[in-house]
Amino acid sequence: MSLASLQQTVDRNDAGIDLVVKILAQRFGERFSAAQAVREQHAHTTTWLPTQAPDGVVFARSTEEVAETVRVCAEHRVPVIPFGTGSSLEGHVNAPAGGISIDMSQMNEILAVHPEDLDCTVQAGVTRTQLNAHLRDTGLFFPIDPGADASLGGMAATRASGTNAVRYGTMKDAVLALTAVMADGRIVRTGGRARKSSAGYDLTRLLVGSEGTLGVITELTLRLHGIPEAVSGGVCPFPDLETACNAVIMTIQCGLPVARIELLDTNQVRACNAYSKLDLAETPTLFVEFHGTQAGVREQSDLFGEIARDCGGGDFVWATQAEERTRLWSARHDAYWAAMGLRPGAKGVSTDVCVPISRLADCIAETNRDIETMGLVTAIVGHVGDGNFHVLVLVDTDDPAEIAAAEEFIERLNWRAIDMGGTCTGEHGVGQGKMKYLAREHGAGLDVMRAIKTALDPMNILNPGKIVAGG
Amino acid sequence: MSLASLQQTVDRNDAGIDLVVKILAQRFGERFSAAQAVREQHAHTTTWLPTQAPDGVVFARSTEEVAETVRVCAEHRVPVIPFGTGSSLEGHVNAPAGGISIDMSQMNEILAVHPEDLDCTVQAGVTRTQLNAHLRDTGLFFPIDPGADASLGGMAATRASGTNAVRYGTMKDAVLALTAVMADGRIVRTGGRARKSSAGYDLTRLLVGSEGTLGVITELTLRLHGIPEAVSGGVCPFPDLETACNAVIMTIQCGLPVARIELLDTNQVRACNAYSKLDLAETPTLFVEFHGTQAGVREQSDLFGEIARDCGGGDFVWATQAEERTRLWSARHDAYWAAMGLRPGAKGVSTDVCVPISRLADCIAETNRDIETMGLVTAIVGHVGDGNFHVLVLVDTDDPAEIAAAEEFIERLNWRAIDMGGTCTGEHGVGQGKMKYLAREHGAGLDVMRAIKTALDPMNILNPGKIVAGG
Repeated sequence: MSLASLQQTVDRNDAGIDLVVKILAQRFGERFSAAQAVREQHAHTTTWLPTQAPDGVVFARSTEEVAETVRVCAEHRVPVIPFGTGSSLEGHVNAPAGGISIDMSQMNEILAVHPEDLDCTVQAGVTRTQLNAHLRDTGLFFPIDPGADASLGGMAATRASGTNAVRYGTMKDAVLALTAVMADGRIVRTGGRARKSSAGYDLTRLLVGSEGTLGVITELTLRLHGIPEAVSGGVCPFPDLETACNAVIMTIQCGLPVARIELLDTNQVRACNAYSKLDLAETPTLFVEFHGTQAGVREQSDLFGEIARDCGGGDFVWATQAEERTRLWSARHDAYWAAMGLRPGAKGVSTDVCVPISRLADCIAETNRDIETMGLVTAIVGHVGDGNFHVLVLVDTDDPAEIAAAEEFIERLNWRAIDMGGTCTGEHGVGQGKMKYLAREHGAGLDVMRAIKTALDPMNILNPGKIVAGG
Repeated sequence: MSLASLQQTVDRNDAGIDLVVKILAQRFGERFSAAQAVREQHAHTTTWLPTQAPDGVVFARSTEEVAETVRVCAEHRVPVIPFGTGSSLEGHVNAPAGGISIDMSQMNEILAVHPEDLDCTVQAGVTRTQLNAHLRDTGLFFPIDPGADASLGGMAATRASGTNAVRYGTMKDAVLALTAVMADGRIVRTGGRARKSSAGYDLTRLLVGSEGTLGVITELTLRLHGIPEAVSGGVCPFPDLETACNAVIMTIQCGLPVARIELLDTNQVRACNAYSKLDLAETPTLFVEFHGTQAGVREQSDLFGEIARDCGGGDFVWATQAEERTRLWSARHDAYWAAMGLRPGAKGVSTDVCVPISRLADCIAETNRDIETMGLVTAIVGHVGDGNFHVLVLVDTDDPAEIAAAEEFIERLNWRAIDMGGTCTGEHGVGQGKMKYLAREHGAGLDVMRAIKTALDPMNILNPGKIVAGG
């Protein structure tokens, strides 16, 4: 594996780009930038993929402005790369053929909240914490919580999820309707506010996870949930990863409606102890949370405690008070930063896979054997109720042998997950970094994806070089 | 509105059809039929749309046989119409341009059950009751329950749901992976057994609800659920429909995890009393069910009782014993047949719409005004937790004025639902009968659907004249 092989070569249309930069500069004035720093910031990726900057950035304020930008780009066959907050992990916002980045951060208006229907409509640049702050007085919340405070448009584009997905689903479940600008600048509204529909092809779920390659998402209607009357949560230590995985499997099989069930391996617990001033036993640990009525969460917590004990785990120490839970979950949310502290100065490379839950223990065990054999410094943290886990590899980028080992490790992990009936990404998305795995995962399905891409974006101007661009 | 306008004219390719009939007769022997009775049975629809029979029926036994049939048809540009159990409601299995019906009833093998992953893989012809009978000893069940004992492939194709959808979702949520035969005979596997994935376009959810127009579904991997430890259920009478709707809205808004919440209007209750020997008060009534632990379902039932009372409803009489609940839910499942008894000899035409729940009371009230003004005989029954309801119109087909009134009523109901931010079908699908509403519901999205159809089925041989065929 070499980094270059992850980034497809796409021809630049220099003449078209020069013209479009001039047109958009005139049209958008101060809300267009071709400054080097701004361009590079918009191709910033949280991976180790090299930055490929766009040629200019439009700071759009409305669906119509996005449509206008796309129309100009379409006319001159220039790529368009939507940009939310730049927290994607696989080179999603890189511009391998140059082009125009559309920054959605100024499209940050919450357009409507319908508490009686448990939904809201937002512009694509609204972030998840902004939405939840806005909802605070309604008794409702939006549950999808990827690590970053991502934009909701970006979360839809990458089919993001997070710690609550085991109970509340992922962005595919959360998005009821979308407004999107298609490759020719047409504005399309998909789905609706009804809770279900059988009226034609599910364009909403086709666009969710399409990473800007089929349309630019500009507005979203999202399902909301009532803030539960009671929440209980706590931590449970396990002697090893296998025992912890078994407790997760048993919990899911019992139909216990767990709201969050997160696995941290020993390295990750050690990192969290140091970073977030916790005093957890440094052993594989589950962070668990239940949502419901006072009686319900107590009953569920007790039941989980029994399951954990039966599986060989330690005591499940739980509380319903907000402070203690908040401390724990803040630590969980800071896990990435904590893990970075395991090896100061190293570059952190995060990868995620997802497997059927019956294969979770095997998959993590085999992955751990690789980590040991290869002598890598890693931390594992997972949304294990869904069979989804992340490995953060801390790499000394001055050591070519270590880079090669890390690359081989990641590759082996992805093939392993696919071969176990799983997927090369549970929630990070494909971008540039995971294209190489799609043929093995989807077979002839990849050709179907390409046919759809060609039909909806015949000139290949929407985020080219991503998802379906692999050879 | 005229019936003819619902059925698009599609040119027949007589020469191709003659040839394909000969090839398939030779290839499949007794598992091919061109007998008039068999052909007509395979275009039987539960609507009042005229029957348009295919030219022959293949009784396939494997994905490979379906692929072979599609390849033969593709070679000679002959339509292919997948057939499950024929319980669809909008002319889905009609053959307006003739062609070959692929009967899936012999593809009825349950291929694998993975209790540890709460999933199973089945051939498309397995019916929902067959699957649940098979699962009985596993402690698991498959919750999606449309009125008919439909095939799971057909249920996926129409994005079916039923009484449990408010808690367990619809077929879009239940299907994890699909095997489908595309228009050129290629076999594609979409999705996988991981609980979530961000690895490319969501082909699974594109095929779910595509009604055989994008591919022929031959196998499905389905999510299963643990049979709840306890179930409580009962009925609650209300003085009027509005009060009943308000109780539903309040229940959903409170986040009460209701498993089923079904509205029956006075006519429907009267019909059920007569048909199923019940003695319910003949007034709008909610059938409600909770799934959980013993303590949980008790707590939830009590809470629902309070909500109903607060909204002006009568007593919520509930029980946890299976017998009483079974009697009630059998009556609910027989509601269609019961309602047919309201007017013996009449033709029953069922239509369904779905609106945001805040508009449910309004939508039903306006619909009732139409029913009164037009002097129609109807019964209303709804999966109201989702904002979804059905109207069965009982029509004297010898009375042209009454037919015209019923058609106008249905048309007004569909426009009303769309204009309220809802959809022209919550679960029945489009088929031929609802194509006329799609332009208003989807706008430019319909063009996107057509572009996808053209890309994946350029010769328009997969179930032509449905969904996207409207002018």
